[in-house]
Amino acid sequence: MRIAVVAPSCRLTEEAAERVHSIAARRGDCEIVIHPQCFLSDGHFAGPDEARFAALREVMADPGFDAVWFARGGYGSNRIAEAALAEMPEEAWRKVYLGYSDAGFLHAGFHKAGLEVAWGPMPQDVVRASGEAAVNRALDWLVRRDPAALEPGLDGPAMAFNLTVLSNLLGTPLEPNFSGVDLLIEDVGEHLYRIDRSMFHVTASPAIRKVRRIRLGRVADVLPNDPAFACDETAIVESWCRRSGIQFGGLADIGHDARNRVVPFPARND
Amino acid sequence: MRIAVVAPSCRLTEEAAERVHSIAARRGDCEIVIHPQCFLSDGHFAGPDEARFAALREVMADPGFDAVWFARGGYGSNRIAEAALAEMPEEAWRKVYLGYSDAGFLHAGFHKAGLEVAWGPMPQDVVRASGEAAVNRALDWLVRRDPAALEPGLDGPAMAFNLTVLSNLLGTPLEPNFSGVDLLIEDVGEHLYRIDRSMFHVTASPAIRKVRRIRLGRVADVLPNDPAFACDETAIVESWCRRSGIQFGGLADIGHDARNRVVPFPARND
Repeated sequence: MRIAVVAPSCRLTEEAAERVHSIAARRGDCEIVIHPQCFLSDGHFAGPDEARFAALREVMADPGFDAVWFARGGYGSNRIAEAALAEMPEEAWRKVYLGYSDAGFLHAGFHKAGLEVAWGPMPQDVVRASGEAAVNRALDWLVRRDPAALEPGLDGPAMAFNLTVLSNLLGTPLEPNFSGVDLLIEDVGEHLYRIDRSMFHVTASPAIRKVRRIRLGRVADVLPNDPAFACDETAIVESWCRRSGIQFGGLADIGHDARNRVVPFPARND
Repeated sequence: MRIAVVAPSCRLTEEAAERVHSIAARRGDCEIVIHPQCFLSDGHFAGPDEARFAALREVMADPGFDAVWFARGGYGSNRIAEAALAEMPEEAWRKVYLGYSDAGFLHAGFHKAGLEVAWGPMPQDVVRASGEAAVNRALDWLVRRDPAALEPGLDGPAMAFNLTVLSNLLGTPLEPNFSGVDLLIEDVGEHLYRIDRSMFHVTASPAIRKVRRIRLGRVADVLPNDPAFACDETAIVESWCRRSGIQFGGLADIGHDARNRVVPFPARND
Protein backbone atom coordinates (compact mmCIF):
# COMPACT_ATOMS: atom_id res chain seq x y z
CA MET A 1 0.00 0.00 0.00
CA ARG A 2 1.26 3.46 -0.91
CA ILE A 3 0.37 6.21 1.52
CA ALA A 4 0.83 9.92 0.82
CA VAL A 5 1.36 12.29 3.76
CA VAL A 6 0.40 15.95 3.35
CA ALA A 7 -0.06 18.71 5.93
CA PRO A 8 -3.21 20.80 5.34
CA SER A 9 -2.83 22.46 8.77
CA CYS A 10 0.50 22.78 10.63
CA ARG A 11 4.02 21.65 9.86
CA LEU A 12 5.28 18.10 10.40
CA THR A 13 8.57 17.88 12.30
CA GLU A 14 11.56 16.20 10.69
CA GLU A 15 11.89 13.95 13.74
CA ALA A 16 8.34 12.64 13.32
CA ALA A 17 8.89 12.07 9.60
CA GLU A 18 12.05 10.04 10.20
CA ARG A 19 10.45 7.91 12.88
CA VAL A 20 7.39 7.20 10.74
CA HIS A 21 9.65 6.18 7.84
CA SER A 22 11.51 3.79 10.17
CA ILE A 23 8.26 2.23 11.35
CA ALA A 24 7.12 1.68 7.77
CA ALA A 25 10.49 0.15 6.86
CA ARG A 26 10.28 -2.27 9.79
CA ARG A 27 6.69 -3.20 8.91
CA GLY A 28 7.44 -3.80 5.24
CA ASP A 29 3.74 -3.71 4.30
CA CYS A 30 3.46 -0.12 3.16
CA GLU A 31 5.36 2.70 1.51
CA ILE A 32 4.96 6.13 3.06
CA VAL A 33 5.67 9.13 0.85
CA ILE A 34 5.94 12.33 2.84
CA HIS A 35 5.21 15.26 0.55
CA PRO A 36 7.84 18.03 0.87
CA GLN A 37 5.01 20.48 1.55
CA CYS A 38 4.82 18.96 5.05
CA PHE A 39 8.02 20.81 5.98
CA LEU A 40 7.07 24.22 4.62
CA SER A 41 6.42 26.98 7.09
CA ASP A 42 4.31 30.12 6.73
CA GLY A 43 3.52 31.61 10.13
CA HIS A 44 1.09 29.22 11.80
CA PHE A 45 0.77 26.97 8.75
CA ALA A 46 2.73 24.32 6.83
CA GLY A 47 3.16 26.72 3.94
CA PRO A 48 0.72 29.22 2.44
CA ASP A 49 -2.84 28.16 1.57
CA GLU A 50 -1.86 27.78 -2.09
CA ALA A 51 0.97 25.35 -1.31
CA ARG A 52 -1.09 23.29 1.14
CA PHE A 53 -3.96 23.09 -1.33
CA ALA A 54 -1.68 22.20 -4.25
CA ALA A 55 -0.04 19.36 -2.32
CA LEU A 56 -3.40 18.02 -1.15
CA ARG A 57 -4.86 18.13 -4.63
CA GLU A 58 -1.74 16.54 -6.11
CA VAL A 59 -1.92 13.46 -3.88
CA MET A 60 -5.71 13.23 -4.23
CA ALA A 61 -5.30 13.11 -8.01
CA ASP A 62 -2.33 10.71 -8.05
CA PRO A 63 -3.44 7.15 -8.94
CA GLY A 64 -0.24 5.86 -7.34
CA PHE A 65 -1.58 6.46 -3.83
CA ASP A 66 -4.11 4.30 -1.98
CA ALA A 67 -4.38 6.55 1.04
CA VAL A 68 -3.89 10.17 2.08
CA TRP A 69 -2.70 10.56 5.65
CA PHE A 70 -2.90 14.00 7.22
CA ALA A 71 0.43 14.79 8.90
CA ARG A 72 -0.94 16.53 11.97
CA GLY A 73 -3.62 18.88 13.27
CA GLY A 74 -3.19 22.37 14.65
CA TYR A 75 -5.20 24.75 12.54
CA GLY A 76 -5.68 25.59 8.89
CA SER A 77 -7.35 22.81 6.88
CA ASN A 78 -10.61 24.80 6.81
CA ARG A 79 -8.82 27.48 4.77
CA ILE A 80 -8.36 25.08 1.84
CA ALA A 81 -11.27 22.67 2.32
CA GLU A 82 -13.74 24.45 0.06
CA ALA A 83 -11.17 24.71 -2.72
CA ALA A 84 -10.49 20.99 -2.39
CA LEU A 85 -14.22 20.27 -2.70
CA ALA A 86 -14.61 22.56 -5.70
CA GLU A 87 -11.99 20.81 -7.81
CA MET A 88 -12.22 17.17 -6.90
CA PRO A 89 -10.20 14.86 -9.17
CA GLU A 90 -11.79 11.51 -10.09
CA GLU A 91 -8.97 9.62 -8.41
CA ALA A 92 -10.00 11.15 -5.09
CA TRP A 93 -12.83 8.61 -4.72
CA ARG A 94 -10.37 5.69 -4.95
CA LYS A 95 -8.53 6.52 -1.73
CA VAL A 96 -9.05 6.65 1.99
CA TYR A 97 -8.27 9.77 4.07
CA LEU A 98 -7.08 9.43 7.66
CA GLY A 99 -6.49 11.96 10.43
CA TYR A 100 -8.19 13.80 13.28
CA SER A 101 -8.40 17.12 15.13
CA ASP A 102 -8.22 20.04 12.66
CA ALA A 103 -8.44 17.52 9.78
CA GLY A 104 -12.11 17.28 10.77
CA PHE A 105 -12.86 20.20 8.44
CA LEU A 106 -11.64 18.05 5.53
CA HIS A 107 -13.32 14.90 6.88
CA ALA A 108 -16.63 16.71 7.02
CA GLY A 109 -16.46 18.10 3.50
CA PHE A 110 -14.92 14.96 2.01
CA HIS A 111 -17.53 12.73 3.59
CA LYS A 112 -20.21 15.03 2.23
CA ALA A 113 -18.62 14.57 -1.22
CA GLY A 114 -18.76 10.79 -0.79
CA LEU A 115 -15.08 10.10 -0.15
CA GLU A 116 -13.93 7.46 2.33
CA VAL A 117 -12.64 9.15 5.48
CA ALA A 118 -11.66 7.98 8.94
CA TRP A 119 -10.69 9.49 12.27
CA GLY A 120 -7.40 8.12 13.56
CA PRO A 121 -3.80 8.75 14.64
CA MET A 122 -1.50 10.87 12.48
CA PRO A 123 2.25 10.84 11.73
CA GLN A 124 3.06 13.64 14.21
CA ASP A 125 1.59 11.46 16.99
CA VAL A 126 4.76 9.33 16.83
CA VAL A 127 6.54 11.82 19.11
CA ARG A 128 4.01 11.31 21.91
CA ALA A 129 4.82 8.84 24.69
CA SER A 130 3.90 5.43 23.22
CA GLY A 131 3.40 7.23 19.91
CA GLU A 132 4.76 4.32 17.86
CA ALA A 133 1.78 2.25 18.95
CA ALA A 134 -0.54 5.00 17.70
CA VAL A 135 1.18 5.13 14.31
CA ASN A 136 1.15 1.33 14.00
CA ARG A 137 -2.54 1.30 14.89
CA ALA A 138 -3.23 3.80 12.10
CA LEU A 139 -1.18 1.74 9.63
CA ASP A 140 -2.77 -1.55 10.74
CA TRP A 141 -6.08 -0.04 9.83
CA LEU A 142 -4.93 1.60 6.59
CA VAL A 143 -3.08 -1.48 5.31
CA ARG A 144 -5.37 -4.32 6.41
CA ARG A 145 -8.41 -2.75 8.05
CA ASP A 146 -7.41 -4.40 11.32
CA PRO A 147 -10.52 -4.39 13.56
CA ALA A 148 -8.28 -4.13 16.63
CA ALA A 149 -7.51 -0.56 15.59
CA LEU A 150 -11.15 0.48 15.78
CA GLU A 151 -12.82 2.35 18.60
CA PRO A 152 -14.22 -0.60 20.56
CA GLY A 153 -17.76 0.68 21.06
CA LEU A 154 -18.65 1.10 17.38
CA ASP A 155 -21.86 -0.76 16.51
CA GLY A 156 -23.22 1.17 13.55
CA PRO A 157 -22.53 4.26 11.44
CA ALA A 158 -20.26 6.67 13.32
CA MET A 159 -18.34 9.90 12.92
CA ALA A 160 -15.73 11.46 15.20
CA PHE A 161 -14.85 15.11 15.60
CA ASN A 162 -12.96 17.45 17.82
CA LEU A 163 -15.79 19.35 19.52
CA THR A 164 -14.40 22.81 18.80
CA VAL A 165 -13.76 21.95 15.16
CA LEU A 166 -17.28 20.55 14.89
CA SER A 167 -18.73 23.73 16.35
CA ASN A 168 -16.82 25.77 13.78
CA LEU A 169 -17.96 23.81 10.74
CA LEU A 170 -21.69 23.76 11.48
CA GLY A 171 -23.59 25.89 9.00
CA THR A 172 -20.66 26.03 6.58
CA PRO A 173 -20.55 24.28 3.18
CA LEU A 174 -18.48 21.56 4.88
CA GLU A 175 -21.31 20.36 7.15
CA PRO A 176 -21.98 16.65 6.49
CA ASN A 177 -25.16 14.66 7.04
CA PHE A 178 -25.19 13.47 10.66
CA SER A 179 -28.46 11.53 10.44
CA GLY A 180 -28.43 8.34 12.43
CA VAL A 181 -24.73 8.28 13.28
CA ASP A 182 -23.04 7.82 16.60
CA LEU A 183 -21.22 11.12 16.99
CA LEU A 184 -17.97 10.73 18.94
CA ILE A 185 -16.46 13.97 20.25
CA GLU A 186 -13.33 14.91 22.19
CA ASP A 187 -11.37 18.05 22.91
CA VAL A 188 -8.05 19.34 24.16
CA GLY A 189 -6.71 22.54 25.71
CA GLU A 190 -10.05 24.21 26.42
CA HIS A 191 -11.60 25.71 29.55
CA LEU A 192 -14.67 23.83 30.77
CA TYR A 193 -16.84 26.90 30.17
CA ARG A 194 -15.83 26.65 26.52
CA ILE A 195 -16.72 22.96 26.41
CA ASP A 196 -20.10 23.95 27.84
CA ARG A 197 -20.53 26.75 25.27
CA SER A 198 -19.54 24.49 22.37
CA MET A 199 -21.98 21.83 23.58
CA PHE A 200 -24.73 24.47 23.70
CA HIS A 201 -23.91 25.45 20.13
CA VAL A 202 -23.53 21.95 18.74
CA THR A 203 -26.59 20.42 20.40
CA ALA A 204 -28.78 23.35 19.32
CA SER A 205 -28.09 22.51 15.67
CA PRO A 206 -31.03 20.79 13.92
CA ALA A 207 -28.47 18.80 11.88
CA ILE A 208 -26.81 17.47 15.03
CA ARG A 209 -30.15 16.61 16.61
CA LYS A 210 -30.46 13.92 13.93
CA VAL A 211 -27.58 11.85 15.35
CA ARG A 212 -28.34 8.49 16.93
CA ARG A 213 -26.40 9.46 20.03
CA ILE A 214 -23.35 11.33 21.26
CA ARG A 215 -20.38 9.57 22.85
CA LEU A 216 -17.62 11.41 24.69
CA GLY A 217 -13.93 10.78 24.15
CA ARG A 218 -11.24 12.31 26.29
CA VAL A 219 -11.21 16.01 27.14
CA ALA A 220 -7.52 16.57 27.80
CA ASP A 221 -5.36 19.40 29.12
CA VAL A 222 -8.36 21.32 30.44
CA LEU A 223 -7.35 24.91 31.17
CA PRO A 224 -8.05 26.25 34.66
CA ASN A 225 -11.50 27.75 35.15
CA ASP A 226 -11.67 30.63 37.62
CA PRO A 227 -13.80 30.04 39.63
CA ALA A 228 -13.98 26.25 39.23
CA PHE A 229 -16.72 25.21 36.83
CA ALA A 230 -18.42 22.95 39.38
CA CYS A 231 -18.98 19.96 37.14
CA ASP A 232 -16.78 17.88 34.84
CA GLU A 233 -16.89 17.35 31.07
CA THR A 234 -19.00 14.20 31.28
CA ALA A 235 -21.67 15.99 33.29
CA ILE A 236 -21.54 18.90 30.81
CA VAL A 237 -22.05 16.64 27.80
CA GLU A 238 -24.76 14.58 29.51
CA SER A 239 -26.58 17.74 30.50
CA TRP A 240 -26.65 19.22 26.98
CA CYS A 241 -27.71 15.86 25.56
CA ARG A 242 -30.58 15.78 28.03
CA ARG A 243 -31.61 19.36 27.24
CA SER A 244 -31.56 18.75 23.50
CA GLY A 245 -33.18 15.32 23.48
CA ILE A 246 -30.07 13.60 22.13
CA GLN A 247 -29.18 10.23 23.63
CA PHE A 248 -25.88 10.17 25.54
CA GLY A 249 -24.05 6.98 24.63
CA GLY A 250 -21.31 7.05 27.27
CA LEU A 251 -17.56 7.33 26.85
CA ALA A 252 -15.49 6.72 23.72
CA ASP A 253 -11.86 5.66 23.31
CA ILE A 254 -10.64 8.63 21.27
CA GLY A 255 -8.61 11.71 22.12
CA HIS A 256 -5.48 13.76 21.54
CA ASP A 257 -3.20 10.99 22.81
CA ALA A 258 -1.46 7.78 21.79
CA ARG A 259 -4.47 5.65 22.74
CA ASN A 260 -6.63 7.35 20.11
CA ARG A 261 -8.53 4.74 18.06
CA VAL A 262 -9.82 4.68 14.48
CA VAL A 263 -13.40 5.69 13.65
CA PRO A 264 -14.26 5.09 9.97
CA PHE A 265 -17.05 7.36 8.77
CA PRO A 266 -20.07 5.70 7.11
CA ALA A 267 -19.19 4.37 3.69
CA ARG A 268 -21.83 6.37 1.85
CA ASN A 269 -23.37 9.74 2.43
CA ASP A 270 -27.08 8.93 2.41
CA MET B 1 -35.53 56.26 35.07
CA ARG B 2 -35.45 53.00 37.02
CA ILE B 3 -32.82 50.51 35.90
CA ALA B 4 -32.68 46.88 37.07
CA VAL B 5 -29.33 45.11 37.15
CA VAL B 6 -29.26 41.30 36.86
CA ALA B 7 -26.41 38.91 36.13
CA PRO B 8 -27.31 36.20 33.58
CA SER B 9 -23.66 35.16 33.29
CA CYS B 10 -21.05 35.73 36.01
CA ARG B 11 -21.15 37.36 39.42
CA LEU B 12 -20.99 41.13 39.97
CA THR B 13 -18.44 42.21 42.56
CA GLU B 14 -19.58 44.18 45.60
CA GLU B 15 -17.02 46.88 44.79
CA ALA B 16 -18.50 47.41 41.34
CA ALA B 17 -22.02 47.53 42.76
CA GLU B 18 -21.07 50.19 45.31
CA ARG B 19 -19.29 52.34 42.78
CA VAL B 20 -22.19 52.17 40.32
CA HIS B 21 -24.60 53.16 43.09
CA SER B 22 -22.38 56.14 43.91
CA ILE B 23 -22.31 57.24 40.29
CA ALA B 24 -26.10 57.05 40.07
CA ALA B 25 -26.46 59.01 43.31
CA ARG B 26 -24.17 61.76 42.00
CA ARG B 27 -26.02 61.89 38.66
CA GLY B 28 -29.48 62.08 40.25
CA ASP B 29 -31.21 61.19 36.98
CA CYS B 30 -31.69 57.46 37.53
CA GLU B 31 -32.31 54.85 40.18
CA ILE B 32 -30.29 51.66 39.88
CA VAL B 33 -31.67 48.56 41.57
CA ILE B 34 -29.13 45.78 41.77
CA HIS B 35 -30.94 42.47 42.09
CA PRO B 36 -29.51 40.31 44.92
CA GLN B 37 -29.06 37.50 42.37
CA CYS B 38 -26.05 39.44 41.06
CA PHE B 39 -24.06 38.37 44.12
CA LEU B 40 -24.96 34.68 44.07
CA SER B 41 -22.24 32.22 43.20
CA ASP B 42 -22.50 28.74 41.72
CA GLY B 43 -19.19 27.63 40.28
CA HIS B 44 -18.60 29.72 37.18
CA PHE B 45 -21.98 31.43 37.36
CA ALA B 46 -23.85 34.09 39.35
CA GLY B 47 -26.05 31.42 40.86
CA PRO B 48 -27.61 28.33 39.29
CA ASP B 49 -29.46 28.58 35.97
CA GLU B 50 -32.80 28.62 37.81
CA ALA B 51 -31.83 31.61 39.96
CA ARG B 52 -30.37 33.57 37.05
CA PHE B 53 -33.43 32.89 34.94
CA ALA B 54 -35.85 33.75 37.77
CA ALA B 55 -34.14 37.10 38.40
CA LEU B 56 -34.06 37.95 34.71
CA ARG B 57 -37.70 37.07 34.25
CA GLU B 58 -38.69 38.98 37.39
CA VAL B 59 -37.18 42.26 36.19
CA MET B 60 -38.44 41.74 32.64
CA ALA B 61 -41.98 41.40 34.01
CA ASP B 62 -41.75 44.27 36.49
CA PRO B 63 -43.52 47.39 35.17
CA GLY B 64 -41.49 49.47 37.61
CA PHE B 65 -38.34 49.14 35.50
CA ASP B 66 -37.58 51.04 32.30
CA ALA B 67 -34.34 49.24 31.56
CA VAL B 68 -32.57 45.96 32.29
CA TRP B 69 -28.80 46.31 32.53
CA PHE B 70 -26.71 43.16 32.42
CA ALA B 71 -24.18 43.23 35.25
CA ARG B 72 -21.25 41.73 33.39
CA GLY B 73 -20.21 39.12 30.83
CA GLY B 74 -18.14 36.02 31.35
CA TYR B 75 -20.19 33.03 30.34
CA GLY B 76 -23.63 31.62 30.95
CA SER B 77 -26.44 33.71 29.49
CA ASN B 78 -26.91 31.17 26.69
CA ARG B 79 -27.94 28.61 29.31
CA ILE B 80 -31.07 30.59 30.19
CA ALA B 81 -31.75 32.47 26.95
CA GLU B 82 -34.16 29.97 25.43
CA ALA B 83 -36.16 29.78 28.66
CA ALA B 84 -36.37 33.58 28.68
CA LEU B 85 -37.69 33.55 25.12
CA ALA B 86 -40.22 30.82 25.85
CA GLU B 87 -41.91 32.69 28.67
CA MET B 88 -41.78 36.31 27.66
CA PRO B 89 -43.88 38.62 29.88
CA GLU B 90 -45.74 41.43 28.13
CA GLU B 91 -43.85 44.06 30.10
CA ALA B 92 -40.64 42.83 28.47
CA TRP B 93 -41.42 44.85 25.32
CA ARG B 94 -41.62 48.10 27.30
CA LYS B 95 -37.96 48.11 28.33
CA VAL B 96 -34.51 48.40 26.87
CA TYR B 97 -31.76 45.82 27.51
CA LEU B 98 -28.11 46.89 27.65
CA GLY B 99 -24.87 44.93 27.86
CA TYR B 100 -22.20 43.24 25.74
CA SER B 101 -19.88 40.22 25.52
CA ASP B 102 -21.65 37.07 26.77
CA ALA B 103 -24.91 39.07 26.94
CA GLY B 104 -24.87 38.76 23.15
CA PHE B 105 -26.73 35.46 23.46
CA LEU B 106 -29.62 37.36 25.08
CA HIS B 107 -29.32 40.29 22.69
CA ALA B 108 -29.63 37.95 19.74
CA GLY B 109 -32.67 36.12 21.03
CA PHE B 110 -34.32 39.24 22.45
CA HIS B 111 -33.86 41.16 19.22
CA LYS B 112 -35.35 38.23 17.35
CA ALA B 113 -38.34 38.47 19.70
CA GLY B 114 -38.70 42.19 18.92
CA LEU B 115 -37.33 43.63 22.17
CA GLU B 116 -35.18 46.76 22.25
CA VAL B 117 -31.55 45.81 22.88
CA ALA B 118 -28.24 47.63 22.73
CA TRP B 119 -24.55 46.80 22.99
CA GLY B 120 -22.80 48.94 25.60
CA PRO B 121 -20.81 49.16 28.85
CA MET B 122 -21.94 47.20 31.92
CA PRO B 123 -21.78 47.81 35.69
CA GLN B 124 -18.71 45.61 36.21
CA ASP B 125 -16.79 47.84 33.77
CA VAL B 126 -16.61 50.46 36.53
CA VAL B 127 -13.57 48.71 37.98
CA ARG B 128 -11.57 49.14 34.75
CA ALA B 129 -9.19 52.09 34.43
CA SER B 130 -11.45 55.03 33.45
CA GLY B 131 -14.37 52.71 34.10
CA GLU B 132 -16.55 55.50 35.53
CA ALA B 133 -16.59 57.10 32.09
CA ALA B 134 -17.82 53.83 30.62
CA VAL B 135 -20.62 53.54 33.17
CA ASN B 136 -21.63 57.18 32.68
CA ARG B 137 -21.65 56.65 28.91
CA ALA B 138 -24.02 53.70 29.34
CA LEU B 139 -26.26 55.73 31.67
CA ASP B 140 -26.18 58.80 29.39
CA TRP B 141 -27.56 56.59 26.67
CA LEU B 142 -30.09 54.74 28.86
CA VAL B 143 -31.45 57.89 30.52
CA ARG B 144 -31.47 60.39 27.65
CA ARG B 145 -30.30 58.53 24.52
CA ASP B 146 -27.26 60.79 24.40
CA PRO B 147 -25.87 60.53 20.85
CA ALA B 148 -22.34 61.13 22.21
CA ALA B 149 -22.50 57.63 23.72
CA LEU B 150 -22.98 55.99 20.34
CA GLU B 151 -20.34 54.27 18.27
CA PRO B 152 -19.34 57.16 16.01
CA GLY B 153 -19.46 55.32 12.67
CA LEU B 154 -23.11 54.23 12.85
CA ASP B 155 -25.04 55.32 9.77
CA GLY B 156 -27.83 52.76 9.52
CA PRO B 157 -29.09 49.60 11.17
CA ALA B 158 -26.33 47.94 13.19
CA MET B 159 -25.65 45.10 15.59
CA ALA B 160 -22.58 44.39 17.69
CA PHE B 161 -21.32 41.06 18.95
CA ASN B 162 -18.31 39.45 20.51
CA LEU B 163 -17.01 37.34 17.62
CA THR B 164 -16.72 34.11 19.64
CA VAL B 165 -20.22 34.55 21.09
CA LEU B 166 -21.56 35.23 17.60
CA SER B 167 -19.92 32.07 16.27
CA ASN B 168 -21.55 30.07 19.08
CA LEU B 169 -25.08 31.36 18.50
CA LEU B 170 -25.26 30.81 14.74
CA GLY B 171 -27.69 28.03 13.89
CA THR B 172 -29.27 28.10 17.34
CA PRO B 173 -32.81 29.33 18.09
CA LEU B 174 -31.20 32.60 19.24
CA GLU B 175 -29.93 33.56 15.77
CA PRO B 176 -31.42 36.94 14.77
CA ASN B 177 -32.00 38.37 11.30
CA PHE B 178 -28.78 40.05 10.17
CA SER B 179 -30.11 41.27 6.82
CA GLY B 180 -28.79 44.68 5.85
CA VAL B 181 -27.13 45.55 9.15
CA ASP B 182 -23.65 46.77 9.83
CA LEU B 183 -22.22 43.97 11.93
CA LEU B 184 -19.68 45.21 14.47
CA ILE B 185 -17.47 42.55 16.02
CA GLU B 186 -14.71 42.49 18.63
CA ASP B 187 -12.98 39.89 20.77
CA VAL B 188 -10.76 39.42 23.79
CA GLY B 189 -8.37 36.80 25.11
CA GLU B 190 -8.17 34.65 21.99
CA HIS B 191 -5.28 33.35 19.90
CA LEU B 192 -5.18 34.79 16.36
CA TYR B 193 -5.70 31.32 14.91
CA ARG B 194 -8.99 31.21 16.79
CA ILE B 195 -9.99 34.62 15.44
CA ASP B 196 -9.25 33.25 11.98
CA ARG B 197 -11.27 30.09 12.64
CA SER B 198 -14.22 32.03 14.03
CA MET B 199 -14.14 34.35 11.01
CA PHE B 200 -14.18 31.29 8.73
CA HIS B 201 -17.22 29.99 10.59
CA VAL B 202 -19.09 33.27 10.82
CA THR B 203 -18.53 34.42 7.24
CA ALA B 204 -19.53 31.00 5.86
CA SER B 205 -23.00 31.43 7.36
CA PRO B 206 -25.68 32.31 4.77
CA ALA B 207 -27.39 34.43 7.46
CA ILE B 208 -24.24 36.48 8.03
CA ARG B 209 -23.68 36.93 4.30
CA LYS B 210 -26.81 39.10 4.32
CA VAL B 211 -25.17 41.84 6.40
CA ARG B 212 -24.45 45.19 4.79
CA ARG B 213 -20.86 45.05 5.96
CA ILE B 214 -18.62 43.97 8.83
CA ARG B 215 -16.73 46.47 10.96
CA LEU B 216 -13.99 45.45 13.37
CA GLY B 217 -13.75 46.67 16.95
CA ARG B 218 -10.79 45.98 19.18
CA VAL B 219 -9.28 42.52 19.51
CA ALA B 220 -7.68 42.75 22.94
CA ASP B 221 -5.39 40.58 25.06
CA VAL B 222 -4.49 38.36 22.13
CA LEU B 223 -2.88 35.15 23.42
CA PRO B 224 0.53 34.22 22.02
CA ASN B 225 0.47 32.21 18.81
CA ASP B 226 3.30 29.70 18.41
CA PRO B 227 4.58 30.16 15.76
CA ALA B 228 3.49 33.76 15.14
CA PHE B 229 0.35 33.93 13.03
CA ALA B 230 1.97 36.17 10.39
CA CYS B 231 -0.86 38.66 10.03
CA ASP B 232 -2.92 40.76 12.42
CA GLU B 233 -6.62 40.71 13.25
CA THR B 234 -7.51 43.41 10.74
CA ALA B 235 -5.88 41.46 7.91
CA ILE B 236 -7.68 38.32 9.11
CA VAL B 237 -11.09 39.98 9.09
CA GLU B 238 -10.48 41.72 5.76
CA SER B 239 -9.37 38.45 4.21
CA TRP B 240 -12.48 36.50 5.29
CA CYS B 241 -14.70 39.39 4.17
CA ARG B 242 -13.04 39.28 0.76
CA ARG B 243 -13.38 35.50 0.50
CA SER B 244 -17.04 35.56 1.46
CA GLY B 245 -18.08 38.59 -0.57
CA ILE B 246 -18.95 40.65 2.50
CA GLN B 247 -17.94 44.29 2.48
CA PHE B 248 -15.36 45.23 5.11
CA GLY B 249 -16.36 48.56 6.63
CA GLY B 250 -13.19 49.38 8.56
CA LEU B 251 -12.66 49.74 12.28
CA ALA B 252 -15.27 50.27 15.00
CA ASP B 253 -15.02 51.89 18.42
CA ILE B 254 -16.12 48.93 20.55
CA GLY B 255 -14.26 46.45 22.71
CA HIS B 256 -13.69 44.95 26.13
CA ASP B 257 -12.47 48.24 27.58
CA ALA B 258 -13.62 51.55 29.06
CA ARG B 259 -13.83 53.21 25.64
CA ASN B 260 -16.52 50.77 24.50
CA ARG B 261 -19.40 52.65 22.85
CA VAL B 262 -23.12 51.98 22.55
CA VAL B 263 -24.59 50.21 19.50
CA PRO B 264 -28.40 50.10 19.56
CA PHE B 265 -29.77 47.20 17.54
CA PRO B 266 -32.38 48.03 14.86
CA ALA B 267 -35.67 49.06 16.46
CA ARG B 268 -37.68 46.35 14.72
CA ASN B 269 -36.86 42.86 13.59
CA ASP B 270 -37.94 42.97 9.96
